[in-house]
Amino acid sequence: MYKTGNDIRKAIKDQTWTCPTSGEAPGFVQANLVILPRDWAYDFLLFAQRNPKPCPILEVGETGDPSTRILAENGDIRTDIPKYIVYKDGKNTGEVTDISTLWQDDFVYFLLGCSFSFEQALLSAGLEVRNITEGRNVPMYISNIMCRDAGRFKEVPMVVSMRPFTPSDAERAAEITREYPAVHGKPVQIGSPEKIGIKNLNQPDFGDAVTLREGEIPVFWACGVTPQMAVMQAKPPLVISHAPGHMFVGDLKDLDFKI
Amino acid sequence: MYKTGNDIRKAIKDQTWTCPTSGEAPGFVQANLVILPRDWAYDFLLFAQRNPKPCPILEVGETGDPSTRILAENGDIRTDIPKYIVYKDGKNTGEVTDISTLWQDDFVYFLLGCSFSFEQALLSAGLEVRNITEGRNVPMYISNIMCRDAGRFKEVPMVVSMRPFTPSDAERAAEITREYPAVHGKPVQIGSPEKIGIKNLNQPDFGDAVTLREGEIPVFWACGVTPQMAVMQAKPPLVISHAPGHMFVGDLKDLDFKI
Repeated sequence: MYKTGNDIRKAIKDQTWTCPTSGEAPGFVQANLVILPRDWAYDFLLFAQRNPKPCPILEVGETGDPSTRILAENGDIRTDIPKYIVYKDGKNTGEVTDISTLWQDDFVYFLLGCSFSFEQALLSAGLEVRNITEGRNVPMYISNIMCRDAGRFKEVPMVVSMRPFTPSDAERAAEITREYPAVHGKPVQIGSPEKIGIKNLNQPDFGDAVTLREGEIPVFWACGVTPQMAVMQAKPPLVISHAPGHMFVGDLKDLDFKI
Repeated sequence: MYKTGNDIRKAIKDQTWTCPTSGEAPGFVQANLVILPRDWAYDFLLFAQRNPKPCPILEVGETGDPSTRILAENGDIRTDIPKYIVYKDGKNTGEVTDISTLWQDDFVYFLLGCSFSFEQALLSAGLEVRNITEGRNVPMYISNIMCRDAGRFKEVPMVVSMRPFTPSDAERAAEITREYPAVHGKPVQIGSPEKIGIKNLNQPDFGDAVTLREGEIPVFWACGVTPQMAVMQAKPPLVISHAPGHMFVGDLKDLDFKI
């Protein structure tokens, strides 16, 4: 296991590490990636500004500049992510482990907060996080909560992730995560999936179902898959994102995002 | 005194109210205004994203659309602010009470959080807010904390506001305001003005000096004058802002911005 963000970024740059980053560099912030041409960057930034819970932006590059300054001092977005997906006109055209040859002068990268950060806080408080215990991807559902439109990003439903807790732990989980507004913040719904259009917890739209034990209730958080969904729906000519689970690992700690 | 945001917005629209909004519609959120041509909007949005403490954006309009949807359902940014200042190439060209005839298809408005919101929270907690007690403008200072650059917004120093408290009240004030990250959040400095480049508390760069009593320490928060400073420094061809103290009053409450 890599100990720090810097350690794993080096290994990723060398391509000695091309796997998912979950569990690596514990305590260091991990982030989702979206790269768009400058022509689309304003609409996307505005979409994120209007929908901060599902789209918590942690860092945006200057146009054409792949270097990071905030999450890590000397990161390079072209090489420091273990696996990328390249989309053309909304279609997945394949995975690559380096985008140096694909980089364009008009590219703008966005790094967005992810729930790994608040899961860390929940674990530290002694709460059990079911998807971690069961070694699965967190279950994610397309809810009927609609995001606010922004420019060409329209009618995007909010994707939510679900973790089960007893009612009293659910309250504690809400209290802990509200202090992390930069990484999704407090839950958007507690206990009533049907109120946000979710019919069957056993059939998540993304990720894996997890066990809901007797006496537990489902707790839903805004999910970072939402901005990816927004981008897929709007179909810009060219988009590059991280491959699921293959995140950017920074030098900042999860704790740095506590208010 | 007007009771609600809607009441005072009506009076402002009619031009029966053209005065400062301080103390009006208590509990309703008030916001700073910056209007820029679309060509400058991306850089400004990025500057705000990178400097959320001094530039907490509450709402951004679609290009060319003067209507508000978030802070108030049916606000019109062209008529619902009691007094505007029009800047051309960075120069103040005068005040107006209506900008309907000046509105352009490429205008984008930004409404930014202001410290009125957290002052309300401090008062509710039983803390004394000196500038309010003394009926003065809060003292503001140009600090040596530099904002992160974004596009054409470069080398902008953070403007901070100061309120004096006893050390124990300062701690309570910090605890209260940290729960309002959307309206400047917790203090940027407590007790040591010299550490952020402030030499003389009696000579604020903006606003009025207030009394610092025996045993009190100065507490500094990021201030919403910073984005105005950024815009004045960058000198876009055309900018419209609210006149100091003449704010947009919304239908949302200050409390809605608590995490």
